Amino acid sequence: MDPIRVVQFGLGPIGQACVKALLQKPGLKLVGGIDVDPQKASKDIGEICGLNESLGVTVRGDGAAALAEWRPQVVLHTTQSFLDRIEDQLTTIIRAGAHVVSSAEELFYPFQRNPGFSQHIDTLAKQHGVAVIGTGVNPGFSMDILPLCLTGVCTEVSKIIVTRVVDTGPRRLQLQRKTGAGLSRQEFEERIATGYFGHIGLRESALAVMDTLGWPVEQIEESITPVIAETAISTHFLTIEPQQVAGLRQVLRVKNDGQERLVLELEISVGAKDPRDSVEILGNPSFSMRIEGGIFGETATVAALVNTIPKIINAPPGLRTMMELTVPYAFLV
Amino acid sequence: MDPIRVVQFGLGPIGQACVKALLQKPGLKLVGGIDVDPQKASKDIGEICGLNESLGVTVRGDGAAALAEWRPQVVLHTTQSFLDRIEDQLTTIIRAGAHVVSSAEELFYPFQRNPGFSQHIDTLAKQHGVAVIGTGVNPGFSMDILPLCLTGVCTEVSKIIVTRVVDTGPRRLQLQRKTGAGLSRQEFEERIATGYFGHIGLRESALAVMDTLGWPVEQIEESITPVIAETAISTHFLTIEPQQVAGLRQVLRVKNDGQERLVLELEISVGAKDPRDSVEILGNPSFSMRIEGGIFGETATVAALVNTIPKIINAPPGLRTMMELTVPYAFLV
Repeated sequence: MDPIRVVQFGLGPIGQACVKALLQKPGLKLVGGIDVDPQKASKDIGEICGLNESLGVTVRGDGAAALAEWRPQVVLHTTQSFLDRIEDQLTTIIRAGAHVVSSAEELFYPFQRNPGFSQHIDTLAKQHGVAVIGTGVNPGFSMDILPLCLTGVCTEVSKIIVTRVVDTGPRRLQLQRKTGAGLSRQEFEERIATGYFGHIGLRESALAVMDTLGWPVEQIEESITPVIAETAISTHFLTIEPQQVAGLRQVLRVKNDGQERLVLELEISVGAKDPRDSVEILGNPSFSMRIEGGIFGETATVAALVNTIPKIINAPPGLRTMMELTVPYAFLV
Repeated sequence: MDPIRVVQFGLGPIGQACVKALLQKPGLKLVGGIDVDPQKASKDIGEICGLNESLGVTVRGDGAAALAEWRPQVVLHTTQSFLDRIEDQLTTIIRAGAHVVSSAEELFYPFQRNPGFSQHIDTLAKQHGVAVIGTGVNPGFSMDILPLCLTGVCTEVSKIIVTRVVDTGPRRLQLQRKTGAGLSRQEFEERIATGYFGHIGLRESALAVMDTLGWPVEQIEESITPVIAETAISTHFLTIEPQQVAGLRQVLRVKNDGQERLVLELEISVGAKDPRDSVEILGNPSFSMRIEGGIFGETATVAALVNTIPKIINAPPGLRTMMELTVPYAFLV
C-alpha cells in the first residue's frame, strides 16, 4: 500500500510533535506544512521542528494554494481549540478534498455547542467526499472513549465517575500558565470571567458519553476552582508562593432522570497528589479502572491524532466522531 | 425505532443470563429460543431461565424451521467453544438470513486456526447479506480489545503484558471444575493431554492483537500449568486438599522481530491472590492499567454479547471481528 499523504496544519508544540511521530511511520508520508506565522513560512519543516535534517518539505502560509499543490489525503490540524476560530481553516481543507483529523477540543463533539457550525462542516464534507473528526487524549480518550469502552462489558450502568489528575510540575511552562499556576486567587477569578480559561472539552466529553449511552441530559453543572498551594512549590520555570494558585480543579456533573449519571473530575496543578486516570463504573458489573500516574497528555494527544489517520480515510464522508470509528489502536506501520 | 428481533440459540447458563439481559432492553425483543436438549424443547423460555413468568416464547430444537418462522434479525449464539462444533449451527442461522453474535471463543479470531471454516462462513454470510462475529470478555475484551484500545494513545509500542487473575472460589462449580479445581497433578496432566482442557481463546486474543498492530508473528509459546493448593481450601461446592490442583495458569508469549511483544497471563484458580485485570504497555508513553478484583466474567460475557447486537446489524456482511466494529459501549436502551 502506498503511504498516506499527510499535511501538518499548525506547527506549534503539538504540531511539531505530530511531525516527529509522522516521520516514524512508513505508512505515512509528510508532504507539507501550513502555519499562519510568517516567521515559519518558507522554512523547511525539519528546521521548524528542531530536527537536525532538512526534510525537503516547506512550510507555507497560503493554505488553499499549498493544499492544491500538495494534494494530501489527510490534514492533521493542530491550531486552535474553539470552533469559531477553526471554521475557515476546516473549510479550506475540506474544499481541497482532504480528510481532517483535528486536535480542536470543541470539534470532538460539536453538535450541541454549535449546531450551525456542525451542519455546515458536515454538509460541506459530504459534498467533497471527505471526513472530519476531532480527537486527542482529553477530549478523545481518557474521559470519553476509554470509559465508554469499559461499559462495553456491562449489562447495566447507573453512574460513571472519571477522574484525571495531572501534576504539571514536570511539564511545559505553557501548560502551567494555562492552568493558572502562580496566579493570585483574584487573578484566577478574573481569568475565569473571560470565558476562555480552564480546560476545554470537558463538556464535549460529557455530552458524547451521555448521548452514546442514550441518556438524555437533564442538567449539567460545571465548576472551575483554583488549587491553592499550601507551601511554596518550585518548577523548572516558576515558584508558586503559599496561597497562590497551583492549578485548577474542574468538575462536571450530569444528571439524567433525576440521577447523577456522570461525573468528570479534572485536576491539573503543579504538585498534584496521586496523579492518575481513573474510571469507576457503577452498574452490572461494577468495577474501577486506574492508570497510576496517568497517561502522559502531550504524547497521548499526538498519538490519538496520528493513530486516527488510517481510520479517517475509510470513514463515511461528513463530520464524524470517535464513537463512529473502530476501536482505537496504535498505528505502528 | 422498532426493537431488534433476537433469538437466543443455546440455553445453558450463559444463554439463560443473556435472556435475562435481553429482557431488560426495550430496544431488543426476544422472539424465540433454540436448544438441542430435548428436555428444554417446547418449554417456555421463562421456565427454562427460572423466571417467575411465562414469556410466551417457546424453546425449539428444530433450528431451521423455527428461524424461518421467527425471522429474527440477530441470533445470540451460546453453545460451544470450538469452530468444528458450531459450523453447522452457524450455517443454519446464516441461511435463515440472521446476523450472528456468538460466544464461541474460537470465533473471536478464527482465521489462522481454521482458514477453511473462516472462508466458508465469510462467503456464506456475504451471500445472505448478514454479519457473523464472536465476542465475550475473554476473548473479546480483557486481553485484546481493551489493551488495543489503550494503545490508541501511544505513538510507539514495544511490548504489551496483559494479566487476568480470577479467583474461582465464589464462582460456579462448573468454572471450578473446568479449571481443574480438586484434581491431582496427574489428573491435571491427563486432562491437558486431551487437548480440550484449559482456557480457550488465549491464542485468538494474541493473534488479534498482533495482526491489528501489524506485528507478524514469529513464535508463539503457550504453557498451561496447575496452580497447586498449599493449604486446604473450601468453596461452596468442594474442598481442595493441600497439593491438589486449585486451578490453572496459562501463559502465552509471542515474539516478533526477535523481541517478545505480547505476554498474556491468565490465572483462574480457587483462592487466587490479587484477582485483577491489568495491562502494561511499554511504549511511548508507557503506562499500566489495573482493574482491582478484575471484571466479573459471566456478566461481562453476557454484556459483551448483548452490547454487540445493535452494532452487528450495521456491520458489513461477512465474518467480522470486534476490531472492525465501533468502540464497544453499553447498550442501555
